[in-house]
Amino acid sequence: MAWNAAIMGVTGVVGSEFLKILAERDFPLASLKALASIRSAGKKVPFGDEELVVEELTADSFDGVDLVLASAGGDISREFAPAAVRAGAVVVDNTSAFRMDEDVPLVIPEVNPADIKTHKGIIANPNCSTIIMNVPVWPLHQANPIRRIVMSTYQAVSGAGAAAMAELEAATRAALAGTPFQPKAMPHTTAFNVFSHNSDIGPDGYNLEERKTWRETRKIFHCEDLRVTATCVRVPVMRAHTEAINMEFTNPITEDEVRQILAAAPGVKIVDDREKNYFPMPIDASGQDDILVGRIRSDVSQPDGRGIDMLVSGDQLRKGAALNAVQIAELL
Amino acid sequence: MAWNAAIMGVTGVVGSEFLKILAERDFPLASLKALASIRSAGKKVPFGDEELVVEELTADSFDGVDLVLASAGGDISREFAPAAVRAGAVVVDNTSAFRMDEDVPLVIPEVNPADIKTHKGIIANPNCSTIIMNVPVWPLHQANPIRRIVMSTYQAVSGAGAAAMAELEAATRAALAGTPFQPKAMPHTTAFNVFSHNSDIGPDGYNLEERKTWRETRKIFHCEDLRVTATCVRVPVMRAHTEAINMEFTNPITEDEVRQILAAAPGVKIVDDREKNYFPMPIDASGQDDILVGRIRSDVSQPDGRGIDMLVSGDQLRKGAALNAVQIAELL
Repeated sequence: MAWNAAIMGVTGVVGSEFLKILAERDFPLASLKALASIRSAGKKVPFGDEELVVEELTADSFDGVDLVLASAGGDISREFAPAAVRAGAVVVDNTSAFRMDEDVPLVIPEVNPADIKTHKGIIANPNCSTIIMNVPVWPLHQANPIRRIVMSTYQAVSGAGAAAMAELEAATRAALAGTPFQPKAMPHTTAFNVFSHNSDIGPDGYNLEERKTWRETRKIFHCEDLRVTATCVRVPVMRAHTEAINMEFTNPITEDEVRQILAAAPGVKIVDDREKNYFPMPIDASGQDDILVGRIRSDVSQPDGRGIDMLVSGDQLRKGAALNAVQIAELL
Repeated sequence: MAWNAAIMGVTGVVGSEFLKILAERDFPLASLKALASIRSAGKKVPFGDEELVVEELTADSFDGVDLVLASAGGDISREFAPAAVRAGAVVVDNTSAFRMDEDVPLVIPEVNPADIKTHKGIIANPNCSTIIMNVPVWPLHQANPIRRIVMSTYQAVSGAGAAAMAELEAATRAALAGTPFQPKAMPHTTAFNVFSHNSDIGPDGYNLEERKTWRETRKIFHCEDLRVTATCVRVPVMRAHTEAINMEFTNPITEDEVRQILAAAPGVKIVDDREKNYFPMPIDASGQDDILVGRIRSDVSQPDGRGIDMLVSGDQLRKGAALNAVQIAELL
């Protein structure tokens, strides 16, 4: 069986990652449509050794298409995903448009693959920082239910798209040259700076990115009483997110148990060399499918042995977005 | 009364900050000796509108000196501070050499100024990330004792000295040019990367920088049962540290109470504009005396109302080092 697939938002950073990953994994394709806004129509995008001509995304784009990988923004997904479903396609949506809809499964293949079965045409891909957290946290939660997580993120600019990545480079060049620079893609300069995540803040003081970490995780884990707080911060890094994760378990757990569980967990690679001071870093995670996990240690502030701290790093564009969506399609 | 002062390590980044701050604050000086290793002897360093000639640091450097501001590394302090004390000087030491010694007070002027009285010649300046955390945390702890803190840091390279600052610039230029770069001052590249703090890891999995956050805080707060866990991470930022601080209080506390307490707290400036998404950033904290505090919110993972999250940023070289030491000298 081979898919007649379409990529919505093919010219974005996640779109080009879709093209790379489909080619790398020999994903079974009968045909592949490259869809984007009218501005990009006619452009060519590389796919393996070939090139695809970008077509304008319209409600008629989905004739004969049975799989849509969508990453053109929430509004575009809300507008076009229903048309794709009506045309008979399954939409794997990388935007936040449908993630919390009751009849849309929210899936990380390493965590809740069975949820895919309940889909009614749309399957949602979780937010990048949630995926990167959940791949290593889930096997621990299965072994010993987690009660509470305190997470701080070190998020790459790629999550804000190609313009933000170009801006990090331009802002940094300007800072090194001592010339002024006015950020546009980001609210503040990304050069030699860190700032609170650039998503809207709710009345409770949390931003949207932080809110996703508990809303999505509860849905994916089927665990409504999991307590999570997060502080999401942008750092001058191109494309992998790093996260400091503090976990409180139901029962005592040792760092050796954590290491054993993670060593056997799919999608996880342990990078935890204390002697060489070598731990997960975004430059190492970039381009990798696995989530790197290290700094695994018993939380000294929890003398009852129920706390674990760890540091993880994962490619925001791959496992945090395109790879996870392609893995969902592979499960189909 | 005016001091006959000496700066140990005057050519380092904290040393030059000492010179700037002493001049800015019109610190009462009768004389000022600029001391450094023999390599720097004869060099000139700027002090206000004047220049000082650097002298070689030896055991005989302290004749007639009654105040020493030391920041030349722990080994140098261990070697020369006793000689300075024997010569009749008070040493305010910015290194980790004596911080945990029982008869050495460890002082943040906004927190425990009275501890200075117990000194026997040496007063220790706490570690930078500890000072930056404690200035806003202490007034909250006084109002409602804190039981546990989970902190993640976003630490500037300045903590590793001038060589690390130059290396961040060189590594970034190389990364932008696409040329290879071999880090020397830091174990990993600082360009568009973050990594676990470059201090030794103990058998419990914590690094030295993290250990200081609870050992020093307990001593400064006179609170041996305060529980702290920290994950200390380097980010590509020049000179201010940012910290995500999660606090668990003894009694319920609202974010408005926190805001009221911090608005009246010395050394703290609230930067918490949710509408404009404007919060503490290291580029804003650089060169400022105050610790910037924002993202103040009730911790959603603590439904009993005993949790608060916040994000702080403070100049590592000023309040995190030289300014705090000069403030200690002013208390004398």
